[in-house]
Amino acid sequence: MPSGRSRPARTGRRPGPTDTRGEILRVARESFAETGYGASSLRGIARTAGVDPALIVHFFGSKAGLFIASIGWPFSPAEARAVVADGPQRVGENLAAMFMRHWDDERERSPILAMLHVATGEPAGARMMREFLVEYMLEPLVETIGGEDAGVRAGLIASQLIGLGLTRYVLGYEPLASAPSPLVTKILAASIQRLIDEPLP
Amino acid sequence: MPSGRSRPARTGRRPGPTDTRGEILRVARESFAETGYGASSLRGIARTAGVDPALIVHFFGSKAGLFIASIGWPFSPAEARAVVADGPQRVGENLAAMFMRHWDDERERSPILAMLHVATGEPAGARMMREFLVEYMLEPLVETIGGEDAGVRAGLIASQLIGLGLTRYVLGYEPLASAPSPLVTKILAASIQRLIDEPLP
Repeated sequence: MPSGRSRPARTGRRPGPTDTRGEILRVARESFAETGYGASSLRGIARTAGVDPALIVHFFGSKAGLFIASIGWPFSPAEARAVVADGPQRVGENLAAMFMRHWDDERERSPILAMLHVATGEPAGARMMREFLVEYMLEPLVETIGGEDAGVRAGLIASQLIGLGLTRYVLGYEPLASAPSPLVTKILAASIQRLIDEPLP
Repeated sequence: MPSGRSRPARTGRRPGPTDTRGEILRVARESFAETGYGASSLRGIARTAGVDPALIVHFFGSKAGLFIASIGWPFSPAEARAVVADGPQRVGENLAAMFMRHWDDERERSPILAMLHVATGEPAGARMMREFLVEYMLEPLVETIGGEDAGVRAGLIASQLIGLGLTRYVLGYEPLASAPSPLVTKILAASIQRLIDEPLP
């Protein structure tokens, strides 16, 4: 914990350096749940947690970063980078494998679902999910795909992933829901790779 | 309004035949919003609306039918039938056109979004959305596609539609969000048709 760089709290008690991060997360979770993403502010969360807003920025980068940490979003930035590390011709396989690994695990699925729930419930939640996806997944993807329609291709890939997650794991549509993971991974990988390699209609 | 077939109310006031349907919808909306889909019952809604449960079945067919009517779901069963009426080789084009027509209209989009919000929030909501999609869209689709993997193909088609709706209209990911509708319809139609015509990996 980089407590040496922490600034002193303006108001209220000041938790020890080790539990400061945990306390901020606890307050953030409460705030997002009670007042929504849009209406929650770093300043308000900092006030309730008894820390300086700059400390939250220091720990989490932004309100979006704080939200992601508070819901336990399972995709790490390093994992997202690994998806594109082998070049465009392996993105289908890498991305499908990463996606299925996370969605197949119910504990990892639940924060993704929470984010989709917030995104379908209020524009601020949708904006937050978009900003997050753009930063962590879509920008590296667009760069790796290259070409002038890379943005549309990346969007279609994101829509495949989100749609499959909802249909298989949330709606539980059969026979897709109980189809073996290796089969679904293979179908998904081929479909993503096609969106990278083939011309758009 | 088929008031001649209405049965007398068991309890409470009895609205006139014209506003009975509206009154049931009003009570249903309240009940679904307050206690969720799973915990709402036709019997409870009938009691509050002051009508016989059989009248609700008569008007709406089932609790799912009542829910759909209460949120103003824009896809009519006749439209769903029209998608498959020209045979499997036209499903891509027909389905993409129907889908885009509804999602492009913000008023029609909002009940679809409400359903997705409920589906990502509680298992009962997800079950309801699945049951609805299976009955209105997926069963006719599976029958039209034919063959032993028709169910998986239909599921992948549903996942394309849901994913594109979320990415383009809810998350608003650019450049997909402002891409012209005819272009997106063309891409979607080709993608659906491929899921019908080509072998799965």
